[in-house]
Amino acid sequence: MADETPADATTEPTPAADAAELVAVRARLEASEAELSNYKLKLADFENTRKRLLRDAETDRKYAAEGVMRDLLPALDNLDRAVEAAKRAGDTGPLAVGVAATYTQFLDALKRHGVLRIVCEPGSPFDPNKHEAVMKQPGTEFPPDSVVQVLQHGFTLHERVLRPTTVMVASE
Amino acid sequence: MADETPADATTEPTPAADAAELVAVRARLEASEAELSNYKLKLADFENTRKRLLRDAETDRKYAAEGVMRDLLPALDNLDRAVEAAKRAGDTGPLAVGVAATYTQFLDALKRHGVLRIVCEPGSPFDPNKHEAVMKQPGTEFPPDSVVQVLQHGFTLHERVLRPTTVMVASE
Repeated sequence: MADETPADATTEPTPAADAAELVAVRARLEASEAELSNYKLKLADFENTRKRLLRDAETDRKYAAEGVMRDLLPALDNLDRAVEAAKRAGDTGPLAVGVAATYTQFLDALKRHGVLRIVCEPGSPFDPNKHEAVMKQPGTEFPPDSVVQVLQHGFTLHERVLRPTTVMVASE
Repeated sequence: MADETPADATTEPTPAADAAELVAVRARLEASEAELSNYKLKLADFENTRKRLLRDAETDRKYAAEGVMRDLLPALDNLDRAVEAAKRAGDTGPLAVGVAATYTQFLDALKRHGVLRIVCEPGSPFDPNKHEAVMKQPGTEFPPDSVVQVLQHGFTLHERVLRPTTVMVASE
């Protein structure tokens, strides 16, 4: 019997060794399962991040040119003013005609990228979401809180207001 | 002895039960560790995706306005031509002055967003990366393969050519 014990210990564990290893293996299983559950949470978190990044990228693309478009509007306003002044002065020369065509060309190019001039006529009801009132005018032909005059055109980019229309509003 | 056995079985496992459970727990550990290693790979993959999405978003932002900028160039060309024609005709009226100022205003707004007019003068060496040759002119004062005349200005957006400069090139 005494001779067999060392041989047994190497080829086949004793019941006592089995019990000790069971405790150790159970501990490793517990640690592994805890780590696994931790990784599953992390992965769910990353999946949410990935979805958010893709969504953000789409919005970014849609509104990415917002800054440059807004910065081009003052130059566009000046072109519009030059065209209107030439019209008022009765200028029908090649420069006046060419510049009016160029203004339309700019508007068309912007339109292809989602920029639209806000439609606003004298008599339109004042809409604080799209209009900015800088003057009040009493005694006009229009009911109170309607637009008397457009002072500067406003523009939208897709669903967003790029710049509100600057208007004069009728008061009592 | 026969009475003790059932009590032992419930409160303390027999060596045989220990050995069986050890096999089962080892199998669960192996499965758990395999799954964990799988999750670790997935997580590393997601981390790479996240980094790529963030990098893409940065490039997207930098070049997002590329399309609208390119589409605005023909209108800008026409404005440039109107200004040059008025200059040649000796027109110094308010419309000519106003339109020239507006053209500069457009260029300045684009410059603030990374768009620069490609500098190209008669005599500049022809550069296929930035110039597009549409005509060859023999017998000029310039050496072969140099720019004789700029036909249409080109523009860059950050490091990219938005549109090459259209040029006439000197030939032998």
